[in-house]
Amino acid sequence: MQLYIANQNYSTWSLRAWLIFDHYNLNANVIKLKLFTPDFYDTLAKVTPTAKVPTLVDGDVAVWDSLAILEYVNDAYLNGAAWPTSVAERALARAISAEMHSGFFNIRNELPMNCRAKRKLTLSNDALKDIARIDAIWSAQMEQYPEGWLFGEWSIADAMFAPVVLRAETYGIQLSEKAKQYQQRVLNSPSIQKWLAEASLEIDVVEEDEAGEPV
Amino acid sequence: MQLYIANQNYSTWSLRAWLIFDHYNLNANVIKLKLFTPDFYDTLAKVTPTAKVPTLVDGDVAVWDSLAILEYVNDAYLNGAAWPTSVAERALARAISAEMHSGFFNIRNELPMNCRAKRKLTLSNDALKDIARIDAIWSAQMEQYPEGWLFGEWSIADAMFAPVVLRAETYGIQLSEKAKQYQQRVLNSPSIQKWLAEASLEIDVVEEDEAGEPV
Ligand SMILES: N[C@@H](CCC(=O)N[C@@H](CS)C(=O)NCC(=O)O)C(=O)O
Ligand SMILES: N[C@@H](CCC(=O)N[C@@H](CS)C(=O)NCC(=O)O)C(=O)O
Repeated sequence: MQLYIANQNYSTWSLRAWLIFDHYNLNANVIKLKLFTPDFYDTLAKVTPTAKVPTLVDGDVAVWDSLAILEYVNDAYLNGAAWPTSVAERALARAISAEMHSGFFNIRNELPMNCRAKRKLTLSNDALKDIARIDAIWSAQMEQYPEGWLFGEWSIADAMFAPVVLRAETYGIQLSEKAKQYQQRVLNSPSIQKWLAEASLEIDVVEEDEAGEPV
Repeated sequence: MQLYIANQNYSTWSLRAWLIFDHYNLNANVIKLKLFTPDFYDTLAKVTPTAKVPTLVDGDVAVWDSLAILEYVNDAYLNGAAWPTSVAERALARAISAEMHSGFFNIRNELPMNCRAKRKLTLSNDALKDIARIDAIWSAQMEQYPEGWLFGEWSIADAMFAPVVLRAETYGIQLSEKAKQYQQRVLNSPSIQKWLAEASLEIDVVEEDEAGEPV
């Protein structure tokens, strides 16, 4: 299997798909392309009609889009283990994952992921609303699983929210006690530590993803 | 089960979720709210944290977001029948459904769904690119399943693309031969005929979803 991703410092959707491979120790050949370079587009043109990362190539099967890759891997290799076991929790996990997949545009626009940086900036009210909604999601789940991931065991929902954990760290976002607890748990996880270590070796700068003032 | 939807004339995401209930003859109490009215927000505030339609309430379980509802119904009531049976086709169906769920913003912005209207307008190049991509998806599937839905049997992918079929009709979008064949098949289906008949009884006008010149 080949998993095409982009700059680990910046690429949120890449991180989401990469996490399921790292978490379950699945073998994939990770091919990292530099965002917005000719090589990025030339390489992707051969494997996906959308020319976006992440894209997974598994023999004859090509899957593009983070959520589709997460569902595919869960389906083809994990026998469903990457969603919660109860149908009600699976429903909630899918609802919040879909929210992330299709929304939170203010966070995406104002707070680009930038793993290696520490920045400060002033957020719009809309971005603050997005953050409050995410804080509420994390806190509610921590009420229920104080020691665990969003649904106790790791799930696709944790992959979907991981980039927000890293953004909150970069921009020093204020979170409630319970949400901070989740953030810390994710930050300390081996997969995120590995991602951050790999990201820290990168030197390329994508200007449009540099926001805020250094602190 | 209660399925909360909005104006059938305008609400694309409502249509996507509604289709799985109609296609499989599943019993749901459809509650139609008028977009952007106080009643819309008051009612939804009691059942969903996002205050958006579609939202499904099934006993203790609330699911918001079209794709999450489609996956939930497939999972809880259809034993997986609403995705293709082969793992490779399921991957492709999920990839194109995710593309629709998270993208095609130019179509969404420039061509609001407006079931009862016939309009003409000038599209941006970006919107034309979105249409070309959708045409390519439909045509490729029609090559393979000339008589059927996108994957032969009806699937969640058909739900995800249904609003584009209706937009193409409203705005007289030029499609290739094969894509037109798919459009016609969808337009003639009993579920879409029923949706259009119900939409035609509505009289409310949402100004921001009125685009183009009457033809
Ligand atoms: N909905 C897609 C979004 C993928 C996406 O936008 N990826 C970005 C990088 S994080 C990309 O490839 N951008 C290149 C481009 O748009 O040209 C997903 O969930 O995977
Ligand atoms: N990602 C969501 C989008 C839902 C959505 O945006 N619904 C619109 C109507 S089609 C809505 O409820 N708008 C009301 C609002 O945003 O205030 C889904 O797939 O269901």
